[in-house]
Amino acid sequence: MPMDDKFMLMIPGPTPVPERVLLAQAQHLIGHRSGEFSQIMGEITEHLKWLHQTQNDVLILAASGTGAMEAGIINVLSAGDRVLVGSNGKFGDRWVKVCEAFGITVDLIEAEWGQPLDPAAFEAALTADTAKAIKAVIVTHSETSSGVLNDLEAIAKAVKAHGEALIIVDAVTSLGACSVPIDDWGLDIVASGSQKGYMIPPGLGFVAMSDRAWAAYEKSTLPKFYLDLGPYRKSAAKNTTPFTPPVSLFFALQVALGMMREEGLEGIFSRHQRLQQATRAAMKALNLPLFAADDVASPAVTAVMPQGVEAEAIRSTMRKQFDIALAGGQDHLKGKIFRMGHLGFVCDRDIITAVSSLEATLTHLGATGFTPGAGLAAAQAVLMASG
Amino acid sequence: MPMDDKFMLMIPGPTPVPERVLLAQAQHLIGHRSGEFSQIMGEITEHLKWLHQTQNDVLILAASGTGAMEAGIINVLSAGDRVLVGSNGKFGDRWVKVCEAFGITVDLIEAEWGQPLDPAAFEAALTADTAKAIKAVIVTHSETSSGVLNDLEAIAKAVKAHGEALIIVDAVTSLGACSVPIDDWGLDIVASGSQKGYMIPPGLGFVAMSDRAWAAYEKSTLPKFYLDLGPYRKSAAKNTTPFTPPVSLFFALQVALGMMREEGLEGIFSRHQRLQQATRAAMKALNLPLFAADDVASPAVTAVMPQGVEAEAIRSTMRKQFDIALAGGQDHLKGKIFRMGHLGFVCDRDIITAVSSLEATLTHLGATGFTPGAGLAAAQAVLMASG
Repeated sequence: MPMDDKFMLMIPGPTPVPERVLLAQAQHLIGHRSGEFSQIMGEITEHLKWLHQTQNDVLILAASGTGAMEAGIINVLSAGDRVLVGSNGKFGDRWVKVCEAFGITVDLIEAEWGQPLDPAAFEAALTADTAKAIKAVIVTHSETSSGVLNDLEAIAKAVKAHGEALIIVDAVTSLGACSVPIDDWGLDIVASGSQKGYMIPPGLGFVAMSDRAWAAYEKSTLPKFYLDLGPYRKSAAKNTTPFTPPVSLFFALQVALGMMREEGLEGIFSRHQRLQQATRAAMKALNLPLFAADDVASPAVTAVMPQGVEAEAIRSTMRKQFDIALAGGQDHLKGKIFRMGHLGFVCDRDIITAVSSLEATLTHLGATGFTPGAGLAAAQAVLMASG
Repeated sequence: MPMDDKFMLMIPGPTPVPERVLLAQAQHLIGHRSGEFSQIMGEITEHLKWLHQTQNDVLILAASGTGAMEAGIINVLSAGDRVLVGSNGKFGDRWVKVCEAFGITVDLIEAEWGQPLDPAAFEAALTADTAKAIKAVIVTHSETSSGVLNDLEAIAKAVKAHGEALIIVDAVTSLGACSVPIDDWGLDIVASGSQKGYMIPPGLGFVAMSDRAWAAYEKSTLPKFYLDLGPYRKSAAKNTTPFTPPVSLFFALQVALGMMREEGLEGIFSRHQRLQQATRAAMKALNLPLFAADDVASPAVTAVMPQGVEAEAIRSTMRKQFDIALAGGQDHLKGKIFRMGHLGFVCDRDIITAVSSLEATLTHLGATGFTPGAGLAAAQAVLMASG
């Protein structure tokens, strides 16, 4: 039977939140037009640029990741513009819908869910566009629905070679999990959300905007007000916001970003890599088929397509017996896969815990074809070797 | 010298948050696609309908009050539509800007800041519109920038008599402070924000939508995705949200709405009236000119235009010596008025505290023309008579 307050989140968002971050939210509020607030915002903004590896503006919205991504799209484009959208999962599909809602014409580059987008397909489409009709390329870096990490660096290179198109990136589950070097790769617009690598609750969205993105902003004619990034930029220069910001989430963000700086970018990225590899090693040792191949695996979430035992039965037992939440499949993968998040405030012990509970669950459900203890041994080997 | 953690908010938002609400945010998160979350959302939605005095949908967005208000406007209108906007302050002006950003044609009904909107002007404009060209009337109920409560009931009557136009209401600082009987008055769209009467931090916006509003939604052609209320309605019917919701703010809202139900609508409204009257009686006794007349005074915030002593000097001393935050004037009233919020989690003692500190501040600043103790005595008389 589930016990109150013993709940453990192993989903790709909301991710677990450190106690000191949770408690930061419980502070009495301050006015958002005060010097105290501006001081916090200044510190946060500086940390955000560090995390984004950029000198560009990184703006903070009271919105979900989708709101941030929409802002990134509608601030640099106009109705009738043509864009190239890569889609190999639910979030790629969502950006197509955003474009369609705003009258932006979409050329689609698809891959099956679980497969990566092919950078060569982007290169071909961009090279063929000698008329420079393509205004932007929209790519999801880590596709949360399938656990695939797309080759953003290669796609960004193809966009740079085109010379005109902007690259708009959904980095919702990659930022804070693996390197997203905005300046090095020349990423123009990068959107993310707070309940992922940031280790804070949902409610804030982030948009990084390059100089090229701001130049495009000047030409964009799509109507917007709340998601108009111009006023956010103007206010951010004075360490304030155009509209009332979610102050308690800013308190949380200040603490979480401080923790991230203590760990350091290399520490954060190598920890996520270790957790991902340990998770994948365990799944393989348990003969649980991984939905994405090793070389394209997301650092944030591992999708598993069990055979001979129902994915939903696994999730249900994990939930009821061990108080561990795993995510299910979305859209056509509903009931067919489960997804284990290992993103944000997750440590080696969490992987050991989840893998061991999964083994117990498989045994309980009568799954065959695996040696009890094999998953734990495999995870442990990875963690101990690289810890 | 200011002391840490001794800070007292007397601004019109963010308003003070009860300890149990603050602490609710500090709970570990749960997945937003879980049964537990749906149970919370179901309870919240039922409470929201009670607070809004309506059977209409009340939808919850991850956005500020401005985002909620924009959603209310762009979901029922199209570019080229004609609307009547009432403006007698900063927020009325803001809804004009939203309309302009979306190509909506605005007929403006203005009053000076500090004066109420004239319902007869709405009636005249609506009666003259025999062609039924006016698609909506947009009104700010409590104008936070000046402390004026507009006569929403009378304006709503004029809109109903028109028969075609919708009424879109900014109830950001009226909801939870005074009665906004949506069904009785036939209000079509009512927007509000969490950091006001709701007694929780900023980060959530609310939009109530009538059947007539939903009928208009079907015809609206303005582009939208994140602020498209259709998916919110569809999800809300299943006690879920289309995008990741700010889960910790939902925890807070659940507790705060429970507290509001315990107090009851009549209790909440009469408390705000008592606090407002005590505040105003004190200002009068201190010979501090009130910016709005008694019969149009907001229940949420009192604006004061001191003579012979600088408004900013008062705010500064209140802040530094007594750790009390008052709001300043906005736009052309910057430096000319101060605004005392008495909205949300505010009790009689808070008014006594603020008034007494204000007296001490005035004395310290060398203000003349008042009898020390007069403000406190006046506030006390109101509070004791009606408490």
